[in-house]
Amino acid sequence: MAGPGRRPGAPDTRGAILAAARAAFAERGFDRTTSRAIAAAAGVTPGLVHHYFGSKADLLVAALELPFDPRDVLGPALPGPPELLGRRIATAAVGLWEDTAHRDQLLAYLRTAMTNPEAARTLRLGIPAVAVPLLSQVVPGPDVEVRVNLAMTQILGMAVLRYAIGLEPLASVPAEELIDRLAPVLQQHLLG
Amino acid sequence: MAGPGRRPGAPDTRGAILAAARAAFAERGFDRTTSRAIAAAAGVTPGLVHHYFGSKADLLVAALELPFDPRDVLGPALPGPPELLGRRIATAAVGLWEDTAHRDQLLAYLRTAMTNPEAARTLRLGIPAVAVPLLSQVVPGPDVEVRVNLAMTQILGMAVLRYAIGLEPLASVPAEELIDRLAPVLQQHLLG
Repeated sequence: MAGPGRRPGAPDTRGAILAAARAAFAERGFDRTTSRAIAAAAGVTPGLVHHYFGSKADLLVAALELPFDPRDVLGPALPGPPELLGRRIATAAVGLWEDTAHRDQLLAYLRTAMTNPEAARTLRLGIPAVAVPLLSQVVPGPDVEVRVNLAMTQILGMAVLRYAIGLEPLASVPAEELIDRLAPVLQQHLLG
Repeated sequence: MAGPGRRPGAPDTRGAILAAARAAFAERGFDRTTSRAIAAAAGVTPGLVHHYFGSKADLLVAALELPFDPRDVLGPALPGPPELLGRRIATAAVGLWEDTAHRDQLLAYLRTAMTNPEAARTLRLGIPAVAVPLLSQVVPGPDVEVRVNLAMTQILGMAVLRYAIGLEPLASVPAEELIDRLAPVLQQHLLG
């Protein structure tokens, strides 16, 4: 299945696909990139791309190199009464950041995105390609993209000031109170 | 008025006061630092500190080295009907960031605060010492500090994703629409 001179399963095959994916997503964006084009650029068959990474969205998530799969965080927050969507998203976001196993990696990711154009580009790519399609399932209307972007601004700003800067009293507010305060705001952004 | 060996008005006098102020604010916080203690640490009289910088809050604003005086941005947004406070703050914040003369400096400030503990400390110091007292004039209740912190998370997150990361479609939303979308959220944080 692999191209000439490549052993399937060798570490460089996986790496070559990821590198080709990053370059293609950065150049053409997520929607206009096909798995087939990534395979061609990596010198492998489309079947091998699928074998290693699954769907194009899976490949993007792998290319983002996040310390977690954002679909595992966001996905379970979607089902439920629409009037509690903000609360479910707040609970998921605060839960993610309160998990000290991930926090340092998340902070490192944010710092890099703030200072490195390459990392900023993956963030710019990842939110529309991963968060928007998921939330489109529960946020109707043509402005879902702006709404999701704004919900992300609230979550990201909270993370920066609470965890990266350590602003008080925000940094000491219990997680439950933080969720109570973010819930109506995220509700407004997404469905208000 | 100056200590021995210092000419009043010499550039190093001003610099010495600022350095002493930064060290004192960082060590003891804004509330527990006096102008008198800063003067003593800088080897000048309290009168000279007042002559150069005015009040203790003025001195803090100078020590923050922001590209603008936050009181000039926030102050004019305070008077008016309480139910439009969120809109006035949104208008002031978006106006500040849309001003391209300041934007690069603001972004540099944010990047530094994300990566440099010293800069993070000035931000941690500045918000409670400058924004909280101003907003306390219009936000009643014992939780004004948390409310102001959360309003800052929304503004900062918006600035990071719109201006530093360039997330679309957020980066292309007209300023007026952005104000319309932020107004109810800031209203909820401050008075909801």
